[in-house]
Amino acid sequence: MTYCVAMKLADGLVFVADSRTNAGVDNISTFRKLFTFGNGRDHALVLLSAGNLATTQSIVELLKRRIEEAEENLMTLPSMYDEAAYIGRLMREIIERDTHPQQSQGVDLGCSLLLGGQIRGEAPRLFLIYPQGNFIEASAETPFFQIGEFKYGKPILDRIITPNTPLETALTCGLISMDSTIKSNLTVDLPLDILIYNKDSYSLERTRQISAEDEQFLALRKAWGEGIRELFNRLPRTEL
Amino acid sequence: MTYCVAMKLADGLVFVADSRTNAGVDNISTFRKLFTFGNGRDHALVLLSAGNLATTQSIVELLKRRIEEAEENLMTLPSMYDEAAYIGRLMREIIERDTHPQQSQGVDLGCSLLLGGQIRGEAPRLFLIYPQGNFIEASAETPFFQIGEFKYGKPILDRIITPNTPLETALTCGLISMDSTIKSNLTVDLPLDILIYNKDSYSLERTRQISAEDEQFLALRKAWGEGIRELFNRLPRTEL
Repeated sequence: MTYCVAMKLADGLVFVADSRTNAGVDNISTFRKLFTFGNGRDHALVLLSAGNLATTQSIVELLKRRIEEAEENLMTLPSMYDEAAYIGRLMREIIERDTHPQQSQGVDLGCSLLLGGQIRGEAPRLFLIYPQGNFIEASAETPFFQIGEFKYGKPILDRIITPNTPLETALTCGLISMDSTIKSNLTVDLPLDILIYNKDSYSLERTRQISAEDEQFLALRKAWGEGIRELFNRLPRTEL
Repeated sequence: MTYCVAMKLADGLVFVADSRTNAGVDNISTFRKLFTFGNGRDHALVLLSAGNLATTQSIVELLKRRIEEAEENLMTLPSMYDEAAYIGRLMREIIERDTHPQQSQGVDLGCSLLLGGQIRGEAPRLFLIYPQGNFIEASAETPFFQIGEFKYGKPILDRIITPNTPLETALTCGLISMDSTIKSNLTVDLPLDILIYNKDSYSLERTRQISAEDEQFLALRKAWGEGIRELFNRLPRTEL
């Protein structure tokens, strides 16, 4: 499984992705699920993936290859809407290429993607691309999207994230959401990839990987766990 | 859908159940999902239900009827283990009675039950009865069980509940877990039924219903929401 979350805020975009993949609980590996595509000038794109690993790896490989080889590619399309449609189309092509009903053995080739970024001339935008290749866009009412094992980590996002949440607070909330999911579900785990995109920067440099030994993450985990327990001691009791 | 949680603690048992049922999102009703069976002397049982409403209503009706009519019934069985087996057997009988493959129209008749309580001679015990009629028991390592739409509300239970959590704190945690689920999922909603069973009391009187206007619940919701946001402002930042 996988858990990824992306948020669209007034000041930019925030991304958090785990890196665990599994085919059954006895076949667990670590693969990066956060990918960036940018030229530093007018195109800055971040892609998060969940679902069939063969499909998502092919998507990323062919997106990169086309930047080198094709005229129409992620760095030439004029709008984030066109980027989402382009990636959705590529997803369908790959799934069609790899679908052979006699040999499928019931394997689901589908995947879900989060695409966030900015192209000069537009504000930053965030899309969720479905396994069918169609897509929806985040709005002020729904400033975040999740893919993969999303339920455990949703309540804290529902309580904290609004369009005006500062980027750094949103990152903290994304990490708590991820930590709750890791605690409750074996198939989501560290290391994490995180990225903050500041509006109009066209820079994808504010990114790093968080390992199980990351001191800042461990400090956050501890402060949250202690803070929650301490908060519980102050909550009003329900009489019975 | 439904969300119910039950906890087995050193001092007794705690139960929280919502009351929303739905057959599709356009057919929503309110039905009680918490049922008690006791004689005030040596048998005190609480049953929480999720799943097919026709099946769970039949189970409760026949359990009550058998207390009046049958020699072997919930008030005469000598152990909670026997009670769980007895209810699981009844569940299978009802599902078999109502299963007619030609007429099923794909409806799932299955249900899940939480059974907690105490019979004199034993400590309080808590069981999860599966749709197959078999069952598992809560232990010190796993002091709570959930049925229905359980993922949204699991992280807070994972962080707070241990076997030594006081009953009143556990109730508060169950209510927060329920509130998180209500906020994230339309098919779970108030009113709630709550019950605290104090070890060796054989009393099922510490129970009440919490409506949408319940002042204590509203105060708890507010204190939790504000406390979480205030805690966020104190959390250490992750540098990028």
